Amino acid sequence: MRDIPDIAALVARREAFKSLEAPFYTAAEIYDLDLEAIFGKMWIFVASDAELPEPGDCVTLSVGTTSVLLLRGDDEEVRAFHNVCRHRGAKLINEPTATIGNIVCRYHGWTYNEDGELILADHMGSDFDKDCHGLKTIHVRSLAGLIFICLAETPPADFDEMARVMQRYLAPHDIANCKVAHQSDLIEDGNWKLTMENNRECYHCEGNHPQLTVPLSEFGFGFSPDDMDERRSQDVANYLADVARNHAKWESCGLPSAEEEHLSNISGFRTMRLPLMWEGESHTVDTKVASKKLLGDFTDPKLGGLSFWTHPNSWHHFMSDHIVTFSVLPLSAGRTLVRTTWLVHKDAIEGQDYTLDNLTQVWRYTNQQDADLVALAQLGAAQPAYEPGPYSRYTEPHVEAFAAWYIARMAEHLDTAALQVAAQ
Amino acid sequence: MRDIPDIAALVARREAFKSLEAPFYTAAEIYDLDLEAIFGKMWIFVASDAELPEPGDCVTLSVGTTSVLLLRGDDEEVRAFHNVCRHRGAKLINEPTATIGNIVCRYHGWTYNEDGELILADHMGSDFDKDCHGLKTIHVRSLAGLIFICLAETPPADFDEMARVMQRYLAPHDIANCKVAHQSDLIEDGNWKLTMENNRECYHCEGNHPQLTVPLSEFGFGFSPDDMDERRSQDVANYLADVARNHAKWESCGLPSAEEEHLSNISGFRTMRLPLMWEGESHTVDTKVASKKLLGDFTDPKLGGLSFWTHPNSWHHFMSDHIVTFSVLPLSAGRTLVRTTWLVHKDAIEGQDYTLDNLTQVWRYTNQQDADLVALAQLGAAQPAYEPGPYSRYTEPHVEAFAAWYIARMAEHLDTAALQVAAQ
Amino acid sequence: MRDIPDIAALVARREAFKSLEAPFYTAAEIYDLDLEAIFGKMWIFVASDAELPEPGDCVTLSVGTTSVLLLRGDDEEVRAFHNVCRHRGAKLINEPTATIGNIVCRYHGWTYNEDGELILADHMGSDFDKDCHGLKTIHVRSLAGLIFICLAETPPADFDEMARVMQRYLAPHDIANCKVAHQSDLIEDGNWKLTMENNRECYHCEGNHPQLTVPLSEFGFGFSPDDMDERRSQDVANYLADVARNHAKWESCGLPSAEEEHLSNISGFRTMRLPLMWEGESHTVDTKVASKKLLGDFTDPKLGGLSFWTHPNSWHHFMSDHIVTFSVLPLSAGRTLVRTTWLVHKDAIEGQDYTLDNLTQVWRYTNQQDADLVALAQLGAAQPAYEPGPYSRYTEPHVEAFAAWYIARMAEHLDTAALQVAAQ
Repeated sequence: MRDIPDIAALVARREAFKSLEAPFYTAAEIYDLDLEAIFGKMWIFVASDAELPEPGDCVTLSVGTTSVLLLRGDDEEVRAFHNVCRHRGAKLINEPTATIGNIVCRYHGWTYNEDGELILADHMGSDFDKDCHGLKTIHVRSLAGLIFICLAETPPADFDEMARVMQRYLAPHDIANCKVAHQSDLIEDGNWKLTMENNRECYHCEGNHPQLTVPLSEFGFGFSPDDMDERRSQDVANYLADVARNHAKWESCGLPSAEEEHLSNISGFRTMRLPLMWEGESHTVDTKVASKKLLGDFTDPKLGGLSFWTHPNSWHHFMSDHIVTFSVLPLSAGRTLVRTTWLVHKDAIEGQDYTLDNLTQVWRYTNQQDADLVALAQLGAAQPAYEPGPYSRYTEPHVEAFAAWYIARMAEHLDTAALQVAAQ
Repeated sequence: MRDIPDIAALVARREAFKSLEAPFYTAAEIYDLDLEAIFGKMWIFVASDAELPEPGDCVTLSVGTTSVLLLRGDDEEVRAFHNVCRHRGAKLINEPTATIGNIVCRYHGWTYNEDGELILADHMGSDFDKDCHGLKTIHVRSLAGLIFICLAETPPADFDEMARVMQRYLAPHDIANCKVAHQSDLIEDGNWKLTMENNRECYHCEGNHPQLTVPLSEFGFGFSPDDMDERRSQDVANYLADVARNHAKWESCGLPSAEEEHLSNISGFRTMRLPLMWEGESHTVDTKVASKKLLGDFTDPKLGGLSFWTHPNSWHHFMSDHIVTFSVLPLSAGRTLVRTTWLVHKDAIEGQDYTLDNLTQVWRYTNQQDADLVALAQLGAAQPAYEPGPYSRYTEPHVEAFAAWYIARMAEHLDTAALQVAAQ
Repeated sequence: MRDIPDIAALVARREAFKSLEAPFYTAAEIYDLDLEAIFGKMWIFVASDAELPEPGDCVTLSVGTTSVLLLRGDDEEVRAFHNVCRHRGAKLINEPTATIGNIVCRYHGWTYNEDGELILADHMGSDFDKDCHGLKTIHVRSLAGLIFICLAETPPADFDEMARVMQRYLAPHDIANCKVAHQSDLIEDGNWKLTMENNRECYHCEGNHPQLTVPLSEFGFGFSPDDMDERRSQDVANYLADVARNHAKWESCGLPSAEEEHLSNISGFRTMRLPLMWEGESHTVDTKVASKKLLGDFTDPKLGGLSFWTHPNSWHHFMSDHIVTFSVLPLSAGRTLVRTTWLVHKDAIEGQDYTLDNLTQVWRYTNQQDADLVALAQLGAAQPAYEPGPYSRYTEPHVEAFAAWYIARMAEHLDTAALQVAAQ
């Protein structure tokens, strides 16, 4: 019979280096709790500065049942509001993007300024207090142009640590002077954690991602030392020497490149700059830059690929000529939105400096290939025969890091909830 | 986590002159209770005589999970049955309308007469008692040609009061000699109560309904006295004088016109005849009659618009030349059917006396505009940031009347249910 | 309000010779229990040998949430596995049919041999034990070429009785030398038990199945003796004499034909060979063989129609020239898959020995007609006015046999579950 899972028990008995038990991927109750404990409490990556460059530019998006309204004000700062009128609750901006003056509710014309203050409400009578009916605000932070929000009243404090470390890595790529070349919304038929777990390993890449792996070394994503013969051992040594050589070069040019791993933080993250093979300039199928107009002050196109992964919902790849950001937003226990955005220099001209087809090719294919794998994983997890299987300690340590982080957040959340109940 | 709402607590703590708490619009449990307490107990408007004019004519429709079969008998009276065979339960008439002799089940040929009596059932053996297997009946009443049903065993008695008051208002428009010119079924992406609340105010009309408002005065639907300057005060006085003058004229011709408001009744209703501006004859975009063939014995086209609103699910507009009826039927917590029917004189000829495009234009546009607003309200109510907001005492008193009526019915229902449990 | 049905009470109070109470057809909770108690414990018909004739041929299908992988091995035997990788649980074969060497998971390349043993798993390290990560197996039996699976650990033992009785009936039709001429998947909008109940009577045939009934006698499926006049009594006597004459002839040719009814068995079944009227050779609209190439060693096309019905999910019709198999698989409380497969001799050539149109005509039409009836029954059962109605003891005894069998299995399952809870 349809049982409501005992979530606390499932959390408590999770075994390290094994995939999660099935209800974490399939149960509506755990999906709801994920929205509370993860997407309702953590810093969530939702957009970049390039998506709302001018004052009055809006972006709306859904984080679970919450509609978020991002608005750049006249002071150039981005605000975030709950996208709900305080009169009878109509959704305010229903389009994914817009450019507005004030925020006007279509229903009865209630009007809010860029700070969310109610400035007009007809027929409400002389005793009506506009000050009590402003829009509800949401925490928002920009990290070198990457916009994160937090729905909690008190956001995790260690965002500061991530910002401090990452500012140096990201700033040279100068998002402020980028524009959106393309954005795609792909709905994957799987739980958001399967999307994230899939992203946290490249064990599956060789067999599934012919475009992605063109400029990547098979040694960049882990390997079992047990399977090595002498020739492969030499290949590994060569690869590691190449990485060290490149890191030294890039660091000398002011580009931080060494791996930083803070995956146990509440605002957990990891970064690394990796060389691109075949004299690679960028992450494209011909390994050359996709856009002739380099980012920031770059003059050398061969800057490898800087990757930045965050818990719980994003990853990003920064090259000399373009940036790709990924935001993962859960839609239901079995459906997940992956929003991919390609950024190029704001002065790059389509057809002249870059073509969309070449720019987006690698991740257009790779995203679909990943979506297919995630769907197979979801179809498997939904079956009674599924049981948690082993992660490779060599090729799946970051999957383990994600799963362990997730379980830790859930345990904390359940503890807090239990304390609140006990205190009543 | 997904909580089952404590409905009794939500009902008890509802604040007057504020919109309802979110679960009333979004929770499946409250939707189910609405079907029980409101659509299972109240008189529901479902059709008019013009939809089944001849003996043998049927209309089927769904009220929640109940399929209702309306059938006009040889005695011209309309009966209502549960549309379910008493053998193995097949739905009897699956089409929205039909003309039949007896009611024959397609599955095994069981046959019922127009009174629902089982008159044929093959192979059931000599000891089978047909008398125990007749169709289950449903209460049905016609109010001057508007057909209401009640699914309860004992329907609310105060339907008689509504019938007594309204017969005089409606009879002159002579539905019995009308035909259906057009019917549209629009599914709104919102809870049925949002559809009703939207109907119970015209605060939203000026900003959203350019076609509807052509012949309507902005003062017909409430206004805040606080916002009035001298000129507007004079406009209001002129408007009220015009209403009084028209009422006197119409009443002298035998057309009741004064407002009647009985919105606290169990079979709650309200009516009013309002002038149409710009020398208006009818509620059309050019304010002229849509059909040259006037209804009943009318010779003067300038009879204003008689509106009739009923709890919980209908409104109607009666003009000199045509009638528009609206029946609201819930489909789920977030989806609602609005069935709109345009009636003209049965002798009016399409293309000669009226065109469908002109006849239906105002409400075709207005319905879709309302559906868009209801969808925004539903999208807002589903968000955690939603909280009940204030109704204007000037422009939204009838929204309050609807909400208060609804809450009163729910409270009664829960009390009855609690007594029944206690008595067991 | 939305109540969780008290399933044990519903099972206990079921009245014989009446249709089941509504929740058995509509409640998600009972659907889930059906998957456990019926489809999780009984022998389920899923395919025939002709669907995977060669080593390496696979068929995948879903029984509730379980994906089953059927694979014919090099030893010609069919195995059945849970279609889930033991690494991170990806579904292994996602296509409905395939021909493979080993079973290779697309995700990370884990590879299993035809016995389900894990033979390759990269990067798992030297201490990883492949032997603990083989595919989970499912019981599978072939009955003269009809493939049944059982998801339970210990399958019902009385499959042997069915196999013993039926082998003699089915073997002459020689499925091993058949091929699939056509397969159709029809989704019926009804509970799987309504699909089965509909199959277990022909009371509805005369009014609904003009193609099916061409070569069938109206007396072949029961009749009330109370409605008989002298002429019909004589017709019945003639019909029964004709059956007896044909049975004697067929038995003398080594074709068992007498009715066998074992519908109270756990692996309940019934079989019967019936003559086809109008000098009928096969079950087609012209009553002639659909395929010139007769099955097995047959030389006489006039072998009537051998029917074989099994609890809980199949029926089959065997003629001299073709076979039609039906497998019923529940998709949800209100949706059911009916998979129909037409088999002809493997040497029959389309366009020359048979045409698909003629071969499939009877059941193409009949299936759709049945689907329409099942949909009406589901629409009825979902209504509050539905109540269990009487089965005819003359025309619906096998519907009763199915319902009684189902209720008995549910009662046993609930008892076992209660004992397990008590023992804890």
